[in-house]
Amino acid sequence: MDINKLIEEIARELANEMSKKGSSGDSCNSASYDASYAKYCDHTVLKPETSRKTVKQFCDEAKEYGFASVCVNPTHVRYVSELLKGSGVKTCTVIGFPLGANTPFVKAMETRDAIANGAEEVDMVINIGALKDGDYDLVSQDIKAVVEAAAGQAIVKVIIETSALTDQEKIKACLLAKNAGADFVKTSTGFGKGGATVEDVQLMKKTVGENVQVKASTGINSREDADKMIKAGAVRLGTSKGIAIVKGISALALNVAKSSY
Amino acid sequence: MDINKLIEEIARELANEMSKKGSSGDSCNSASYDASYAKYCDHTVLKPETSRKTVKQFCDEAKEYGFASVCVNPTHVRYVSELLKGSGVKTCTVIGFPLGANTPFVKAMETRDAIANGAEEVDMVINIGALKDGDYDLVSQDIKAVVEAAAGQAIVKVIIETSALTDQEKIKACLLAKNAGADFVKTSTGFGKGGATVEDVQLMKKTVGENVQVKASTGINSREDADKMIKAGAVRLGTSKGIAIVKGISALALNVAKSSY
Repeated sequence: MDINKLIEEIARELANEMSKKGSSGDSCNSASYDASYAKYCDHTVLKPETSRKTVKQFCDEAKEYGFASVCVNPTHVRYVSELLKGSGVKTCTVIGFPLGANTPFVKAMETRDAIANGAEEVDMVINIGALKDGDYDLVSQDIKAVVEAAAGQAIVKVIIETSALTDQEKIKACLLAKNAGADFVKTSTGFGKGGATVEDVQLMKKTVGENVQVKASTGINSREDADKMIKAGAVRLGTSKGIAIVKGISALALNVAKSSY
Repeated sequence: MDINKLIEEIARELANEMSKKGSSGDSCNSASYDASYAKYCDHTVLKPETSRKTVKQFCDEAKEYGFASVCVNPTHVRYVSELLKGSGVKTCTVIGFPLGANTPFVKAMETRDAIANGAEEVDMVINIGALKDGDYDLVSQDIKAVVEAAAGQAIVKVIIETSALTDQEKIKACLLAKNAGADFVKTSTGFGKGGATVEDVQLMKKTVGENVQVKASTGINSREDADKMIKAGAVRLGTSKGIAIVKGISALALNVAKSSY
């Protein structure tokens, strides 16, 4: 068995066991978790080999705990939007993911297709190479293409892939996203060299101001991690560990579970 | 400086020095490399942060050594096709890359857009999750969408991402690609858990037969690696180490240079 799968399985069992211990025995476990954390969580599964069964499990969990959204690859959007219908949990997907090195035309078409399939939130990746080359027109055009395609139909989160950028580039990317009309800036794809840091979330929040929100993603595995990111200014968390977060499981208890996202 | 960049720089310097030693001093270094290897190489640079300068360098190198193609992300296709015009080196790009978890509609649109920008070869990623779920209709529909979008205008290579598959799944993926009219099957994206192996290339060649070709990719860093893959049945190699391959630099001399692709 794949070691990561094994780790995830052990982490899940651990989370279940700890939840049983803290539960008062009622069927919905209402005493065993803090629902106020759920609205922060985009319950996320983006591995390319993800099965329909896993996708359904994520949707069931999101409905049970009241997560903000389920975030999946475009191939699963129609299925997820059907499963989540009427639940209040949003269908979220990713655009130009994870490299962001597509053309604006393709990102816009992918956005329209995702919305047609039921997406209510789209997390797009910027053109990282263009940003590094100082081709800000292309970076901006790229974001605007998605914002326009999504207008009035889906909120747009702009993934800047912080681990690939200098602080100056992070600031520039956030300003371009803000000026292009994005709803959120988001730290990471989960496929880059690193994930969300407190410093980056603070920098991003400071840069975009009040009217644009920050989503912290990748490496947010525990209640402690969530608290740090929320304190730094994030109002959404991209994570596959939402259950651990709402159940208040600490990083210590989860130290076997490295992020699978 | 990023350690990978440093490693690449050292490897490049090493390659240049070794080439000088073996050279007879003529300006085109004709005595120092084996041009017969060049036609196997798709000179590949797919990192999301790739600069235009690096893309130009890859095009210059491809023209100098006569590589089969330069393989870049879609954002660079128009630039590459302009640089390579009249050179005989093809413009190659990637579709649904690297996760393959888009819809067939989006993969087809991305193919049409890439061809409009000058792509002559497209390397698409299969829907890995659908394959694992046994949803062969979707896997097939996905490949056919790209094959039809490319018909008569670009050759299609189908990346099956061997490192994520069992042998049975590899065989199934190859047969679906063959039946959908693909020109090539290809081992790896370079963003998965592993790269080309001799066993996989042999299995893929045996499965697709004479009329479909095999491209081995990821982890092919030296003349020795290239020889193994070609002997196993590959007629194309996806690599950023084409210069080392044509110059006959061994894995031993390149042991500092882990694949950057």
